[in-house]
Amino acid sequence: MAPAASSSAPSFSSADALLSSFRFERVLSEDPRALLVYLLGTAVPEGQSERAPCILKLEKTPYAPDEAPSLATPGAWSKLQTVTCNDIYSTSLAWFAPGRTTADVQILSICPATEKHVKKYSMQVSRLVRETPELYETVVKPYMDSLSPSTISWVYNILDGTAEAENVLYRDDDPETGFVLTPDLKWDQKTLSALYLLVLTQDRTIRSLRNLRTRHLPLLRKIRQECERVAMERYGIEKGELRFFVHYQPTYYHFHVHIVHLSYLSFSGITVGQAHLLDDLIDSLSLEVEASNSGGPAPLQSWFERRTFTYSLGVEHPLYALLKEKGA
Amino acid sequence: MAPAASSSAPSFSSADALLSSFRFERVLSEDPRALLVYLLGTAVPEGQSERAPCILKLEKTPYAPDEAPSLATPGAWSKLQTVTCNDIYSTSLAWFAPGRTTADVQILSICPATEKHVKKYSMQVSRLVRETPELYETVVKPYMDSLSPSTISWVYNILDGTAEAENVLYRDDDPETGFVLTPDLKWDQKTLSALYLLVLTQDRTIRSLRNLRTRHLPLLRKIRQECERVAMERYGIEKGELRFFVHYQPTYYHFHVHIVHLSYLSFSGITVGQAHLLDDLIDSLSLEVEASNSGGPAPLQSWFERRTFTYSLGVEHPLYALLKEKGA
Repeated sequence: MAPAASSSAPSFSSADALLSSFRFERVLSEDPRALLVYLLGTAVPEGQSERAPCILKLEKTPYAPDEAPSLATPGAWSKLQTVTCNDIYSTSLAWFAPGRTTADVQILSICPATEKHVKKYSMQVSRLVRETPELYETVVKPYMDSLSPSTISWVYNILDGTAEAENVLYRDDDPETGFVLTPDLKWDQKTLSALYLLVLTQDRTIRSLRNLRTRHLPLLRKIRQECERVAMERYGIEKGELRFFVHYQPTYYHFHVHIVHLSYLSFSGITVGQAHLLDDLIDSLSLEVEASNSGGPAPLQSWFERRTFTYSLGVEHPLYALLKEKGA
Repeated sequence: MAPAASSSAPSFSSADALLSSFRFERVLSEDPRALLVYLLGTAVPEGQSERAPCILKLEKTPYAPDEAPSLATPGAWSKLQTVTCNDIYSTSLAWFAPGRTTADVQILSICPATEKHVKKYSMQVSRLVRETPELYETVVKPYMDSLSPSTISWVYNILDGTAEAENVLYRDDDPETGFVLTPDLKWDQKTLSALYLLVLTQDRTIRSLRNLRTRHLPLLRKIRQECERVAMERYGIEKGELRFFVHYQPTYYHFHVHIVHLSYLSFSGITVGQAHLLDDLIDSLSLEVEASNSGGPAPLQSWFERRTFTYSLGVEHPLYALLKEKGA
């Protein structure tokens, strides 16, 4: 007679015992970046004779703090495979042990690296700032005006059709409600759960969401509707599967909308404060129209002009020192 | 004479050549979950004699789609170490190869697993829903009313001091502007860059941000100020290093505020739509006061009552079917 396990007895006393009896059934779920996986199967708890459902979570571990230097030696790897070498950039794959089907680590190298490279990949310290309407007028607007118009000529090239024309998914040339829809460069155009599209508006007067007014509602609503329709037709995306958002501060000052798949979560671009849902922009402007129709007062009639925006900013960003100086 | 490398010649022809000449200097940056690391060092490009700055990015790779089953066998590992066994739960560490200082994978197991476990760890399909004020009244409010009050008795235990009293970082018993600040269970209370605190308000009438009105401004402002002060004193956190936010939909219907370190980005709890910055709530209510003082009309005097909220909801969530049925 097999000894009856008490209800609080461990079902396994060792990882070996567990894995030796495990029979794989199916993958339950994976992280979008897939560094962890949940498996479902069965196993025979010690002291029992029947198989029982068993879930395994396998999660790759972070690097230990003192491990970093030793990784950059050939001795750390059982196998190294060069993938590409292009000028100063190269990509390789590395295996911790022989016999593993897939590489354990991807290695990217830049050599010779410039100061700019070093800065780009160095730890960015960020702080929250509060941009009041006054700080927008006295700090952010002058900063935008100081930037060379050439920094957004790539945008105008796309709008004018002189660049990336072959990538355009949808084009509407209306000067007020028109826009161009393209795949974002960050998307591999294959992995649907990481879908990333970009909308550039024809209207060159909207520099950021600070400039949005109720007259822009038709443009915003058209972007929401038409892009969802195009994505459904082209990629088989279902209603409610896409997240539309705008950044503030944006990286460049020509109004643009990011569109990503709802399950694409492993990137900081969707963080509250930086990201603003297009649906929320539309809702806020709609309430503004409602207020105006009821004879409402000025304060709520320029929502995006009156708002204080709180966002995180790298302390190396040119705006950070300027805003801090004025008490943001 | 060493042959002069052309400017477009690869600086290395193989990963071996690169790593063999690499000399480690320092870690430039790491992901918060630290599955990637940027190293700075120097290396000697092929055909050259001088050391040049070299950046290496080492990134652990995702599991391959067909790799999962083979991971759940003892043969996949060169070493297995059991960490804990507690009833049906156990934790182990596994190494891909001998000689590696740290484990490559952490394995968690649940056996026997229940249907609830299986559901919890299965891929969650989510969709965006739009909760209008009407849907709040007709769907969400009745849903909240249907929940057993016992689901938040753990909250009242903390507020009353009958549970977790030893964990409380700050307590203010004012029935209107008071709150309790505790470390969140998700925080290990050690890693500052993953700091996670929780604020529970004494006012039991605020069930979610939908109930926020201008009269709550003193409460919200006190939370913002006092918690920042306590975190500075207790953990040496600097001004602007903390992100305060509220979830909608929340997991439980007693108003609470999440506080996390600004650099803690690798979790979906800060996603736009679900997360709302406390600073933005305060700003919106302040503009409401301004509108009211200028003799504004009703529509914009209950901002959180009038708003349409767009958020992602698991299709298994009880609210999803109810909202969809009514056209959300």
